[in-house]
Amino acid sequence: MKFSVIVTLKKDVLDPQGKVVENTLRNIGMEDLKSVRQGKYFEIEINIGDPKKAEKKVDDMCKKLLANLVIEDYKVCKI
Amino acid sequence: MKFSVIVTLKKDVLDPQGKVVENTLRNIGMEDLKSVRQGKYFEIEINIGDPKKAEKKVDDMCKKLLANLVIEDYKVCKI
Repeated sequence: MKFSVIVTLKKDVLDPQGKVVENTLRNIGMEDLKSVRQGKYFEIEINIGDPKKAEKKVDDMCKKLLANLVIEDYKVCKI
Repeated sequence: MKFSVIVTLKKDVLDPQGKVVENTLRNIGMEDLKSVRQGKYFEIEINIGDPKKAEKKVDDMCKKLLANLVIEDYKVCKI
């Protein structure tokens, strides 16, 4: 079973990395740009047949390692 | 108009960063894990009203800066 995990900074947390990408895009002529925020993406394959149990496990992984819940949000989707 | 961009390494390209995450997850007791691959995630807001033009612009950004098409694939979704 395969899941995608997207980890993003919370709305009010500064995102210097995203800002750099934003400025660079502007510098190469993308004037209509409003904002860029960067996050992390993981594709996780897991050997559990039961979708609920598998999703719970991936959720656990996010809480324990992949996301820092103080400043980040995460989203798990089955793919 | 807001888009999400997911940039992932192509299937046959080694992903040392994902491997480290995978090993770390195993070390903290996630035995059912099969594989982890890591990618990049961007949320891009753009001041173009026409959905088709906006998506074309984001596609342009991917080709010019966000993704290295030699080793990476990308996916653009309206959010």
